[in-house]
Amino acid sequence: MSARFGFEILATDGRARRGRMTVAHGDVQTPAFMPVGTRAAVKGITIGQLGDLGADIMLANAYHLHLRPGDQAVAEAGGLHGFTGWTKPILTDSGGFQVFSLAGRRTVNEEGVIFQSHLDGSARALTPESVADIQARLGSDIAMIFDECPAWPVEHGGASSAMERTLRWARRGRDRFEALSAGQVPDVFRPTPGQAQFGIIQGSTFKDLRDQSVKGTVGVGFEAYAIGGLSVGEPSDVMYDIVGHTAEQLPAETPRYLMGAGMPNDLVEAVSRGIDLFDCVLPTRNARNGQLFTRQGAISIKNARYAGDLRPLDEACQCPTCRTHSRAYLRHLFMTGEMSSGILNTVHNLHFYLDTMGRIRKAIEFGIFENFAREFLDGYSRRHPD
Amino acid sequence: MSARFGFEILATDGRARRGRMTVAHGDVQTPAFMPVGTRAAVKGITIGQLGDLGADIMLANAYHLHLRPGDQAVAEAGGLHGFTGWTKPILTDSGGFQVFSLAGRRTVNEEGVIFQSHLDGSARALTPESVADIQARLGSDIAMIFDECPAWPVEHGGASSAMERTLRWARRGRDRFEALSAGQVPDVFRPTPGQAQFGIIQGSTFKDLRDQSVKGTVGVGFEAYAIGGLSVGEPSDVMYDIVGHTAEQLPAETPRYLMGAGMPNDLVEAVSRGIDLFDCVLPTRNARNGQLFTRQGAISIKNARYAGDLRPLDEACQCPTCRTHSRAYLRHLFMTGEMSSGILNTVHNLHFYLDTMGRIRKAIEFGIFENFAREFLDGYSRRHPD
Repeated sequence: MSARFGFEILATDGRARRGRMTVAHGDVQTPAFMPVGTRAAVKGITIGQLGDLGADIMLANAYHLHLRPGDQAVAEAGGLHGFTGWTKPILTDSGGFQVFSLAGRRTVNEEGVIFQSHLDGSARALTPESVADIQARLGSDIAMIFDECPAWPVEHGGASSAMERTLRWARRGRDRFEALSAGQVPDVFRPTPGQAQFGIIQGSTFKDLRDQSVKGTVGVGFEAYAIGGLSVGEPSDVMYDIVGHTAEQLPAETPRYLMGAGMPNDLVEAVSRGIDLFDCVLPTRNARNGQLFTRQGAISIKNARYAGDLRPLDEACQCPTCRTHSRAYLRHLFMTGEMSSGILNTVHNLHFYLDTMGRIRKAIEFGIFENFAREFLDGYSRRHPD
Repeated sequence: MSARFGFEILATDGRARRGRMTVAHGDVQTPAFMPVGTRAAVKGITIGQLGDLGADIMLANAYHLHLRPGDQAVAEAGGLHGFTGWTKPILTDSGGFQVFSLAGRRTVNEEGVIFQSHLDGSARALTPESVADIQARLGSDIAMIFDECPAWPVEHGGASSAMERTLRWARRGRDRFEALSAGQVPDVFRPTPGQAQFGIIQGSTFKDLRDQSVKGTVGVGFEAYAIGGLSVGEPSDVMYDIVGHTAEQLPAETPRYLMGAGMPNDLVEAVSRGIDLFDCVLPTRNARNGQLFTRQGAISIKNARYAGDLRPLDEACQCPTCRTHSRAYLRHLFMTGEMSSGILNTVHNLHFYLDTMGRIRKAIEFGIFENFAREFLDGYSRRHPD
């Protein structure tokens, strides 16, 4: 529980890295995909099913858990691990992205953000310090700083102010984190003493701002660094360009986390540019909408052509859904609105993402990542054969 | 697949029976609870999870599956077993109960029932013969006859007419079943050649009608017999009285199935009156509503008192939900509307029903059923301690 944060690079292939991140509750093999469990639950499956899928780490959201059930309640349950029964690593996002999405229901000043709860409309405030406290109580293995995440597109001036405020907040958030870690805030119960904290690089799609953000954030000093403010609507090639540009300036000896991305091809493209960690709601959200990922692209299971299709979703897939059920049955469950549709689809999509990361790791180990990436992107970009 | 229907009584204790029913796809240890998978899916869990819970047999509904995806489509997938991936026994209810519930949208005559589909309003007809054909195509191990199930309360005259029509329909349904079994209906594909057919006793809460119904239905001759038309709103003591009265007139050498019941105490009461098979939507439906069964009665998980309660739902329960999660977490999932709330609650409630049946079977084997029943009913009827 008090293991120090660590990151060991086991192999590299071009700019792609195969590593092992060590946090308080265990190891995470990288590149890694982190399933999103916003409210301490991954939508569509149980904690047990998430474990069966072989996920090394789960994401949760400080903003949502602060509102419900409350971070103090989670602390009293032994932190998120005691509360959920998930024994492996957990990363908590600060909720900056969520709060800034409450356009019209929040005001930002230098101190922090005042907003209306999306649940009961009550006035709430979040500051870099209070977000550090919330995450300390949640007891995640990795806490993200509270940042200002501008929408896209944004003018250079607006992106610059948000980036500079994020830097000032990073300093304040780190100071609070260090005071918490040093036991100087006795009224905040910290179920995970070995918690690490990641900084977040902002600057939208402006390279000069990304450069300033990297310099300033690394100057504050965190266990590792994330690239925020991408995958918010900008074109893919712009995202890849900014990811590549930013990643290569970040310290090589610690993991790089691309927040909120993305489609399967985005993961491969970002790994080739030196990214180690990912999270995204797409596999779980699309599963519930009947959008299923395969190596040959995505399938919409409600399509009438699958009504009599007795083949598995993906012949090559080893997940419980594909090993047990036909496309015809999965379509029937979706069309009749059965809960098991969401469960089986979520199991498949998360398996696909986690399995893709496993194949990426193997490809880097064997020094064949470039070839793997080309074949993957070629197969994935084709129109699904049926 | 072509095993003949069989039933062996392994032990008796009073009127309670411990048996083994053999159908085409395997054995069912009785007394047994059959989880309800109306549309070829048990609401809230996957086929794999149903197997993990140790269920011997699943229920499905001919009416619902006839409408969607269609019995011909299911036949082409290899019947319900091929369609769902569930390899153990399946019983299909005829849908009589569902059709007669469509008050105002159906007309009954001697030939059968004409009704409007609840899906698209299209006119459809079901007859004793077509329902036998539908179930032949579905390939269930056990097909129920098409019966007329009156609402409760009902006058003696109305109950009598429905019972007598059910008898005439039983004769027609059996004739069709025998023709199907003898291969005389070549255009109906039968994925499960060893399918059995159960008759249904009607007569509402009138003992004289139940007597006539037993005599007539046994006269037609089926592999086994069910008691229908109960658990439809009548008081518990009336139900128990009719169950006891009817069960003791049914042949001892074949299973007795009480349709649609019930609460956990109903199961114990009915076993003590000689019932072997049960089905009910309560464990799955109540799970989704946050009503959880324990040996000390039912819990409403949304109750505020569980917000900080770190104990398992039921200390004595060995289900995955109770072994992994606290009441506090289960309440959080329910209050936030997470899908995993429905999954975890369904797993628990079905485990409770299946485990209760296992304890009933053991008690009969050991000749201590009367004592078990008294303790169970005593514990269950008390107000839950918290």
